[in-house]
Amino acid sequence: MEINGVQIEDTFAEGFPIKVARVQITAVTERWALEAAREATGFGTSVIGCSAEAGIECIVDGSRTPDGRPGVNILICNMGYKNLEASLMNRLGQCVLTAPTAAAFSGMPEAEKQFDTGKKLSFFGDGYQKQLELFGRNVWKIPLMSGDFVIEQSFGAVDGIAGGNFLILGQNQMAALTAAEAATDAIGKLEGTITPFPGGVVSSGSKVGSRYKFLKASTNTAFCTSLREDGVCTLAEDVSCVYEVVINGVNRDAIQQSMKSGINAACRVPGVLKISAANYEGKLGTHQFPLHVVLE
Amino acid sequence: MEINGVQIEDTFAEGFPIKVARVQITAVTERWALEAAREATGFGTSVIGCSAEAGIECIVDGSRTPDGRPGVNILICNMGYKNLEASLMNRLGQCVLTAPTAAAFSGMPEAEKQFDTGKKLSFFGDGYQKQLELFGRNVWKIPLMSGDFVIEQSFGAVDGIAGGNFLILGQNQMAALTAAEAATDAIGKLEGTITPFPGGVVSSGSKVGSRYKFLKASTNTAFCTSLREDGVCTLAEDVSCVYEVVINGVNRDAIQQSMKSGINAACRVPGVLKISAANYEGKLGTHQFPLHVVLE
Amino acid sequence: MEINGVQIEDTFAEGFPIKVARVQITAVTERWALEAAREATGFGTSVIGCSAEAGIECIVDGSRTPDGRPGVNILICNMGYKNLEASLMNRLGQCVLTAPTAAAFSGMPEAEKQFDTGKKLSFFGDGYQKQLELFGRNVWKIPLMSGDFVIEQSFGAVDGIAGGNFLILGQNQMAALTAAEAATDAIGKLEGTITPFPGGVVSSGSKVGSRYKFLKASTNTAFCTSLREDGVCTLAEDVSCVYEVVINGVNRDAIQQSMKSGINAACRVPGVLKISAANYEGKLGTHQFPLHVVLE
Amino acid sequence: MEINGVQIEDTFAEGFPIKVARVQITAVTERWALEAAREATGFGTSVIGCSAEAGIECIVDGSRTPDGRPGVNILICNMGYKNLEASLMNRLGQCVLTAPTAAAFSGMPEAEKQFDTGKKLSFFGDGYQKQLELFGRNVWKIPLMSGDFVIEQSFGAVDGIAGGNFLILGQNQMAALTAAEAATDAIGKLEGTITPFPGGVVSSGSKVGSRYKFLKASTNTAFCTSLREDGVCTLAEDVSCVYEVVINGVNRDAIQQSMKSGINAACRVPGVLKISAANYEGKLGTHQFPLHVVLE
Repeated sequence: MEINGVQIEDTFAEGFPIKVARVQITAVTERWALEAAREATGFGTSVIGCSAEAGIECIVDGSRTPDGRPGVNILICNMGYKNLEASLMNRLGQCVLTAPTAAAFSGMPEAEKQFDTGKKLSFFGDGYQKQLELFGRNVWKIPLMSGDFVIEQSFGAVDGIAGGNFLILGQNQMAALTAAEAATDAIGKLEGTITPFPGGVVSSGSKVGSRYKFLKASTNTAFCTSLREDGVCTLAEDVSCVYEVVINGVNRDAIQQSMKSGINAACRVPGVLKISAANYEGKLGTHQFPLHVVLE
Repeated sequence: MEINGVQIEDTFAEGFPIKVARVQITAVTERWALEAAREATGFGTSVIGCSAEAGIECIVDGSRTPDGRPGVNILICNMGYKNLEASLMNRLGQCVLTAPTAAAFSGMPEAEKQFDTGKKLSFFGDGYQKQLELFGRNVWKIPLMSGDFVIEQSFGAVDGIAGGNFLILGQNQMAALTAAEAATDAIGKLEGTITPFPGGVVSSGSKVGSRYKFLKASTNTAFCTSLREDGVCTLAEDVSCVYEVVINGVNRDAIQQSMKSGINAACRVPGVLKISAANYEGKLGTHQFPLHVVLE
Repeated sequence: MEINGVQIEDTFAEGFPIKVARVQITAVTERWALEAAREATGFGTSVIGCSAEAGIECIVDGSRTPDGRPGVNILICNMGYKNLEASLMNRLGQCVLTAPTAAAFSGMPEAEKQFDTGKKLSFFGDGYQKQLELFGRNVWKIPLMSGDFVIEQSFGAVDGIAGGNFLILGQNQMAALTAAEAATDAIGKLEGTITPFPGGVVSSGSKVGSRYKFLKASTNTAFCTSLREDGVCTLAEDVSCVYEVVINGVNRDAIQQSMKSGINAACRVPGVLKISAANYEGKLGTHQFPLHVVLE
Repeated sequence: MEINGVQIEDTFAEGFPIKVARVQITAVTERWALEAAREATGFGTSVIGCSAEAGIECIVDGSRTPDGRPGVNILICNMGYKNLEASLMNRLGQCVLTAPTAAAFSGMPEAEKQFDTGKKLSFFGDGYQKQLELFGRNVWKIPLMSGDFVIEQSFGAVDGIAGGNFLILGQNQMAALTAAEAATDAIGKLEGTITPFPGGVVSSGSKVGSRYKFLKASTNTAFCTSLREDGVCTLAEDVSCVYEVVINGVNRDAIQQSMKSGINAACRVPGVLKISAANYEGKLGTHQFPLHVVLE
């Protein structure tokens, strides 16, 4: 299979179940909504060493937010609901309650699983917080020095999927990186997914295990082109760089759509030689995304 | 005292000791260095609910980085050295090692306190990591799918100060917010300090204690203008909004310089009525920054 | 009439006929498409002193561009078709042909009026230019040092409208300015219009005529709050600043939709006191946009 | 000669005399100063088809501007002083006078050549303009709907140089483009120069003359890699893309410093094969910049 002359390997991405909450952050301008969203989703690449996997899902205009102001949807992901609740408390409490002109609404009001994060954070009002119905939502109004902070009482979450991915094999580093940027541009326009790594791109794809007992994951040596002389690199000679785009999403369809759009975008960048995907031969993950099926 | 017609209250900001590490992140372009820096310093507003207080200190051009590439200096702050070491491990490991084309160098090579973060992260190379001298620095080279990651062996840290601050009292919310933006513009050009809150601005200044046993800090009711009718707001009638700029720094001088530049910038924005500062009457913090001394 | 507590004056915006061409610029990433678009639409606020009125209409993803790459739609406006043809030649030849990885496609392939700008620019290829069908479009391929430049043979244009507008009256400058930013955020998401002034906002609304023979337009003295003591300012006492948002569009509907979205956004910013519009009592323009009708 | 393994060809860039004015634009925040500066310098790549060559020189903080607000320095260049005066009138009048919160100061108060652009634009005040001394400058205050516009009476200009340049030869397009971005990052930090093309980069380097009588410049066929089969491309086989960085500056030293910094930055990007420069064998330009001398 080929797209725009780029070979698509017949392999699959392997994903894992994860819990996902969507929060809609609004602010006086899109720029201030983005500031809050970036702070709230930072230090959120992988649950291996971060308290959550988090990212900006998409920008939404005032016609799609409860208060009519510009907004940014973010997704916050954790392996279990208990950790997810802690993430919501800490990330909304520290990074959205504190953000100029921000408000926080649930992006999953219909979800079965609900956390009363808004209620818990409302105690910051020291008795002056007030529960009310606003814009058809059940919210808390917390007086702040800069005005009132509005936060929805409950935030919903669903069973989602982490680890959707594809690999971009390039003639050199800049070709692969620009293709990754083009891919995350495209994915950033879609709903239901995030690319939680820095700028949406992973520079350090890993394999399961290592030669050290204390380390459960290590660099994917078979794909390290600087290890050609060591005989461990299995990549074709013309490939000199591999970037990975990792995608978390609210469901299987959202991830498939983002993989498709991202790969199509990447294949339009000159110097991209091949698209592949990362998996563990199906031993670990429960969700498989075969590239040839996704791209149909 | 007045600056540009804005009254400067005769009060002081109250700061606390904190441990501070500086990391210099370089990348192929300034934009990619910023992506890594933003991810590494995100979810880092206050140690109350974040694993660290972190922010971008300043941008540095290639003439001031070990590898001659564009760079961004970040500061990471924790209450103790043990937590700071964990922050360095997690934030550099998850957000810089994973960031496209990034490298990480110590921004405090002369500091007495040193952490061997680079050495510890190098095990990700699964035996193929190599220690070498590069650009006059003792670094590790870790093979990645996208190329080699270079990280300095040791990262230094010093005793710094958190909680430098000033308050901007505005005729309305947008005047105070724009002044806060102008202030963080100015502070962002200076070395030695960060403004760790979203966009550099705190919307939710707090007081110590609350009416709830489980909550140690709550909204600063005396400065909440929506509580005027409740009789708890002590602000003048013409003030309708207060934003706070919180500054962490490597030492007293750096914080004073940033307070001075920030306040001067804020006082040039129309609609700013008064500058004040947050303190706990000297009961808690060990560092006092009197506004009239700082602005001399 | 009121929106969110902000009074909407019962008046109308007065627009004028103008010729409008849409160009779709694509590039390897959205960022590079934006660089080309910004250069091509710069120095394009008013035909009084600029060679055209120009601006970014909206961002389009790869699913909506001929070559599947990310794109930016721009509108270029002139009083007559002759000037518009010259603008297309100069702005595409100097700012898009020269822009890294850019391509230029017609955004109005169905329009009756067509200019063969692509054909004319193709001579830059010095005999090596080639006409071909690509992506279902009739294009020229011009060899460049950095690769081939693709440009459509013909660019369409239509009879549009300039001078759609509304005025934001604020308690102070920052309230009115932030509201103008929120308005242009909203308008920037819509198709068919641009806000050609710097950052989408006009700081210097004008009246027809002046006391000088050589000057056909001058500052709108009746709305200058610094002229209160001179007795020429007719604004209410509580207003201290007025910003104008000027909108050009491909037709009446597009302008009405953008006025509606922009005004709704502006009315959500605290410190906005009133919305009005600029007109010349119907003496000059042929298009009237009554605010109360537009906002129905 | 080599830098970081990249060959530096023993050739020279050829520049031409041009007239250069520097304008310092200040605004309430750096962001608004940048909006004004971008609009004022847009559609300004080459005097072949633009009314001026213009660009952002550098960002300056409040400690270096007359009014203590954040600022952006721009350079505007024309072949003669008469055209330069017209450019100042139109670009400041249409893009800075109209820009929210902007003010305009001369960046060359000591220059021998001075234009009374501020005085001429002041008539927009319709008799209410006032001349006064402010911040030690001789300025005009023009009442606007959004507040008063402050502009210096006179703007200075000097004999500068256009066409400083270097060429980046890359293994592929993305390597050369990223290197060009890194170069313009570096040059953007320096004073005295601009890179007037889109994003600072030229995709369409030209040669003098063409096979068409009406066209005085055409694509540099000898460097077009898509013309290899036509036998006109003289580039080495491994080169597949060439980007040019063109630099205008206030004097010879400024251009040399920017060429040096830009080339050094470009040579740190993987996939860059060679640095060269564009000249006309000394037949046209009066300023020669030999790469080996510049890089000493």
